[in-house]
Amino acid sequence: MTNWSEINQNAREWIKEAGEKIKHSFSKTLVIQTKTNANDLVTDIDKKTEQYFIGKIRELYPEHKILGEEGFGDELSNLEGIVWIIDPIDGTMNFVHQQRNFAISIGIYKDGMGKIGLIYDVVHNELYHCQKGHGVYLNELLLPPLKEVNVSEAIIGMNATWVTENTRIDPSMLSPLVKHARGTRSYGSAALEMAYIVSNRLDAYITLRLAPWDIAAGIIMVEELGGVATTLKGEPLNLLKNNSVFISRPGLHQEILEKYLKNGKW
Amino acid sequence: MTNWSEINQNAREWIKEAGEKIKHSFSKTLVIQTKTNANDLVTDIDKKTEQYFIGKIRELYPEHKILGEEGFGDELSNLEGIVWIIDPIDGTMNFVHQQRNFAISIGIYKDGMGKIGLIYDVVHNELYHCQKGHGVYLNELLLPPLKEVNVSEAIIGMNATWVTENTRIDPSMLSPLVKHARGTRSYGSAALEMAYIVSNRLDAYITLRLAPWDIAAGIIMVEELGGVATTLKGEPLNLLKNNSVFISRPGLHQEILEKYLKNGKW
Repeated sequence: MTNWSEINQNAREWIKEAGEKIKHSFSKTLVIQTKTNANDLVTDIDKKTEQYFIGKIRELYPEHKILGEEGFGDELSNLEGIVWIIDPIDGTMNFVHQQRNFAISIGIYKDGMGKIGLIYDVVHNELYHCQKGHGVYLNELLLPPLKEVNVSEAIIGMNATWVTENTRIDPSMLSPLVKHARGTRSYGSAALEMAYIVSNRLDAYITLRLAPWDIAAGIIMVEELGGVATTLKGEPLNLLKNNSVFISRPGLHQEILEKYLKNGKW
Repeated sequence: MTNWSEINQNAREWIKEAGEKIKHSFSKTLVIQTKTNANDLVTDIDKKTEQYFIGKIRELYPEHKILGEEGFGDELSNLEGIVWIIDPIDGTMNFVHQQRNFAISIGIYKDGMGKIGLIYDVVHNELYHCQKGHGVYLNELLLPPLKEVNVSEAIIGMNATWVTENTRIDPSMLSPLVKHARGTRSYGSAALEMAYIVSNRLDAYITLRLAPWDIAAGIIMVEELGGVATTLKGEPLNLLKNNSVFISRPGLHQEILEKYLKNGKW
């Protein structure tokens, strides 16, 4: 029998320790490399943080598999067994520009089923954590289930990019949603935006392309509290490839899907 | 001679005390009234906070004038004399939905010239403060002058509303800026977005309609550090009426004005 409580306990200790290392690193100069373009900044700290987790996991759980943003983990063609899906720094642009509003994200799956989710807002010292079936916590605080709201009462996490000419979606598709919602916000970290849904700071989050490590932890938490996590077409998310992502409270998910996304051109 | 250091000291004490009152109020139920529409939420705490400041100012500085969002101050037709321009809670929607990401904003002017600016991010306990000519501080930390950057390196604070059909600006005007910038963010509080410019978390901020109390403190700080604060046409901001607002680092302000705003349809 897998001891999920023990894994959860260890993961929480490691994520806190990794956060401490990151905070200490702020005093040193950041060595920034560009990956594929200027919007996709990678830092040495990003890489070192992933390697730190991999070292810990390999030591205690050598049979577990690891999927990590920086590529130091395994090459996976399926989600069989226990898989750690890790984003060492989600919101790298915020990390580089702001030294805040980024998070460490870890989702742990067994045979494709979410078991443990951790999102750590390092600078604000907010650890969102969830062991499936045991609720979602923000630090020591147990978070309540997500209630339904209407679009007119909702604050939606969505970047201006998606209502501007772009390669992924006709901007006229999401524009009516921007107009009808109470407001929109954009924080630049998928993990945090999902954490804000479980903590009632946002009601929904929409983006056009995310990797598995951006969402692996968040969807476990959102679903644990009754929220819904799908693609923009309303289909299940696939953790072995990139997806469009539409995360929402219950009720609101159906309303947005039917009124704004279902008949969209894309 | 006006003792600006003393006024600064008192204002900082009052804003901290007001912040404490707001934090304590979170445990009580918020009584929310709608002002003109659902996007313009007012709470009893908003009103009480403004009244708190007015009481303090009237007691110590009965000759000073007050312009406040909630309307408990004076009706002003000019900015002669010493004028306190107060937003007791900037980012009311965030305040109501999130209980964070709002700020108290106080700008103090003499004959229309900015003298003292204070923006207090209550929940994160970050007090940005500036006495003209003495630099801008984030808590005890003296902030450096703003450096120039290009659009391609810039993170711009701008809501998706302004690139969606709206009554104030042709959405096609700002769309190219969204495409060319490194990224955009939207935090839902003008005061905080201006504070993020002085603390290097954002490089520019664009919005189409703000009241004097939203910007009075921020523009003093931005200008103190070499930034530029104008309307979207590049004209001076008028603190007796609503304005479009374009705040930026130096250099970037000129680039955005010339390449994106100057020939815009609006």
